[in-house]
Amino acid sequence: MSELGLTVKKSEDFSEWYTQVILKSGLVDYAPIKGCIIFRELAYAIWEKIQEIFNEKIKRTGHRNVYFPLFIPESLLKKEAEHFSGFVPEVAWVTMGGDEVLEEKLAIRPTSETIICATYAKWIKSWRDLPVKLNQWCSVVRWDTKGTKPFIRTREFLWQEGHTAHETKEEADREVMEILNEYKDLIENYLAIPVLAGRKSESEKFAGALYTTTLEAIMPDGKALQMATSHNLGQNFSKVFEIKFMGRDGKEHYVWQTSWGFSTRLIGAMVMVHGDDKGLILPPRIAPTQVVIIPIPSKDMEIEKIIEKAKSIQGKLSASGISTILDDRLEYTPGWKYNHWELRGIPLRIEIGSMEIKKEQITIARRDTYERITVKEEEIVEAIKKLLEEIQRNLYNRAKKFLEEKITRVENYEEFKKILSEKGGFIKASWCGNRECEEKIKEETGATIRLIPFEREEPFSKCIYCGKEAKEVAYFAKSY
Amino acid sequence: MSELGLTVKKSEDFSEWYTQVILKSGLVDYAPIKGCIIFRELAYAIWEKIQEIFNEKIKRTGHRNVYFPLFIPESLLKKEAEHFSGFVPEVAWVTMGGDEVLEEKLAIRPTSETIICATYAKWIKSWRDLPVKLNQWCSVVRWDTKGTKPFIRTREFLWQEGHTAHETKEEADREVMEILNEYKDLIENYLAIPVLAGRKSESEKFAGALYTTTLEAIMPDGKALQMATSHNLGQNFSKVFEIKFMGRDGKEHYVWQTSWGFSTRLIGAMVMVHGDDKGLILPPRIAPTQVVIIPIPSKDMEIEKIIEKAKSIQGKLSASGISTILDDRLEYTPGWKYNHWELRGIPLRIEIGSMEIKKEQITIARRDTYERITVKEEEIVEAIKKLLEEIQRNLYNRAKKFLEEKITRVENYEEFKKILSEKGGFIKASWCGNRECEEKIKEETGATIRLIPFEREEPFSKCIYCGKEAKEVAYFAKSY
Repeated sequence: MSELGLTVKKSEDFSEWYTQVILKSGLVDYAPIKGCIIFRELAYAIWEKIQEIFNEKIKRTGHRNVYFPLFIPESLLKKEAEHFSGFVPEVAWVTMGGDEVLEEKLAIRPTSETIICATYAKWIKSWRDLPVKLNQWCSVVRWDTKGTKPFIRTREFLWQEGHTAHETKEEADREVMEILNEYKDLIENYLAIPVLAGRKSESEKFAGALYTTTLEAIMPDGKALQMATSHNLGQNFSKVFEIKFMGRDGKEHYVWQTSWGFSTRLIGAMVMVHGDDKGLILPPRIAPTQVVIIPIPSKDMEIEKIIEKAKSIQGKLSASGISTILDDRLEYTPGWKYNHWELRGIPLRIEIGSMEIKKEQITIARRDTYERITVKEEEIVEAIKKLLEEIQRNLYNRAKKFLEEKITRVENYEEFKKILSEKGGFIKASWCGNRECEEKIKEETGATIRLIPFEREEPFSKCIYCGKEAKEVAYFAKSY
Repeated sequence: MSELGLTVKKSEDFSEWYTQVILKSGLVDYAPIKGCIIFRELAYAIWEKIQEIFNEKIKRTGHRNVYFPLFIPESLLKKEAEHFSGFVPEVAWVTMGGDEVLEEKLAIRPTSETIICATYAKWIKSWRDLPVKLNQWCSVVRWDTKGTKPFIRTREFLWQEGHTAHETKEEADREVMEILNEYKDLIENYLAIPVLAGRKSESEKFAGALYTTTLEAIMPDGKALQMATSHNLGQNFSKVFEIKFMGRDGKEHYVWQTSWGFSTRLIGAMVMVHGDDKGLILPPRIAPTQVVIIPIPSKDMEIEKIIEKAKSIQGKLSASGISTILDDRLEYTPGWKYNHWELRGIPLRIEIGSMEIKKEQITIARRDTYERITVKEEEIVEAIKKLLEEIQRNLYNRAKKFLEEKITRVENYEEFKKILSEKGGFIKASWCGNRECEEKIKEETGATIRLIPFEREEPFSKCIYCGKEAKEVAYFAKSY
């Protein structure tokens, strides 16, 4: 069984490199339905890790998981007009059950605000019923006609969607930010991807929201990628769906709502940001397997003895909570195994041969730097733990450095266009705040406002497009 | 906020009792789509527990989780004729994406054999690629036209479906039984529901399978409920989908496959089997919360002091891995809280008042027997652990006793019909093995063969329907 590594360099053909990495590492495969993918063992194990981390966070803060139906009747989806017009072009419709044509067609959920709001209207009667803080893990469908890219844009994807209801706007505001901060922690401290945080412009916000907050990362090709969003829905949905409660003041009020989500897109981001010409590099805190142990056959020692030592090392590491795999297959050479596991991104490799056993030492190879380290056998657990932390930090730091290099401040539109075409990345530009300028810039350059920072930055010039008074500084970029 | 308990007794109107329990305990709610339900916090937390237990089991035995698309193109679903004709009457079809009519309509997966087989054909080339042992957790849709019942029969439900491929029939046989035994352990030792195990008759087996094994439980109304099934698919699918591998003998072979699943129906079974006139009773090993602690206000002690003690007890229990909730809301009376938590099935209640504090003792109430026990405060952790085990055992034992009482052996058809209408339950009857008799019995009585025991039982008479030579003893019952 031969196995081919990557045939292109990340720096030379990024798009082809990405496709090769995700297919050859066994993260995904194409499905026999256009625009859909199969999440294979490795991708799904990463998703389970992400679920575990995020579940712990949201349960600690009083959220609970639930599951609402896959189907949303057309009439329900239509209720909030802005929301409906935002999603209807990409809805997949069920029109038949068995041989029968349905009386009303059913949308496969593109997101669940409407069905959840219809239900909240039944559940919420009094301020005592608030807050309601629910989340669900499910798949959603958006019948995108644009080009699809595994993880990044597919017709079906996995995600979590949180939906909360509160007594006051302030409480909803706090929820939006609490979740955005949890997202930031997950993405920066586990996935090792640095992000910029801010709010979306009016034209880029979630269809039906009061405002949207976002985390944006930069990919190696200079395009921005939206990582997660957290919306304050205000009372837009509660007024349409009549989600009213008797307040502490004895009067009826509409609830204030939030919704927030991230998807399996995060896995795609992780591939793009950390991977190299040999394949995936998984951050140790997310890697389903952190260490691969490879016995090295040798003429001066029986292989059984080497494997026995490898097993004893594995036992020690497992007992310390380090996830390991021992590749003791005899039909493959060590070199083949190195390539095999490098392609799959395992952070550390341990090599054990007769020399290691005689000297009572272990050779460790880092996936991120290819550095080889020799440690005394008795120090193996501590050394591995330290190295895993170092890799985690190193991956974050080099991505952070790249992000910082990819933020450019411009003074005028000429400069904007030049930077965009030559360097890419985020471009900080002064903006008058008008949708017209934003749209013209998008039309002419393909760049959109990715975010407006939470802490208002003082504009350093007039609006780069219309030349009128600038209201704020926005971060523009081309994006996935 | 008033809260109504159950208004019917389980023994008087079982169906109405079931509906009230699942709605009032907050397990589920009806969705705004016919035949679909909302899995609320409690039901979903139970499902998460089940997932955790079963994931541990299958991962230990080398299975891995994956996720295949929701959509199956009609042409793919049609490939295995028997399978298709079994599922097509209840398929929900997507025919439109946005405004466009799709070229080929897409089934919402009723089960995933076909899309998985089409993929296995790509992945499996050599005996070295075998076995493949994958599982997925997802929702499936069956557009049932019969009456729906939350958990038991709904148009969308959550389940796991395992799909494996092997070199030989023997290996597939072993897999089928290994999984059936894991199911039995989950259902009997965690959900505390005793089951009968056996194989299905030809007419009751999974559409497209070689044979189907099943676990069947009895509900309090005497109807059987299929809890989980594990199928040997033989080479039926591999021949249709061309899943071939180069064998150890250098020749090409078709793989042998299995598939197996259980669904959220298990939660409904647990409600039916264990619940009583006060509501749910959750087995301790499945209960998301095992102990509720209720401070009892008293005239001779400040409530703060009582709550403080309650918190200290909660801390001790949590530290020992016991999941607890402290209900220290002041706006509700202890009596109201007792009803509230009894309805929700929490196995144990701890009451702490001034008397308990003064005497350094704790009062514990069992949900299953309503027995009240007083223990010394210092012995609380051990006492709770012991009681949780006792409740787990007691729930199983009383269900086991009921199951045994509900198995009746009959000698002839008259007796069969009499037992079926008067007593219900499983009826052991001699059967000639012909589909015609099975179908006639079903038509005339509504009872089907639920299983044929693995260990052949010697028939005790001629076939109860046709009077010809009996080949085996089958367990008949009316079922959900």
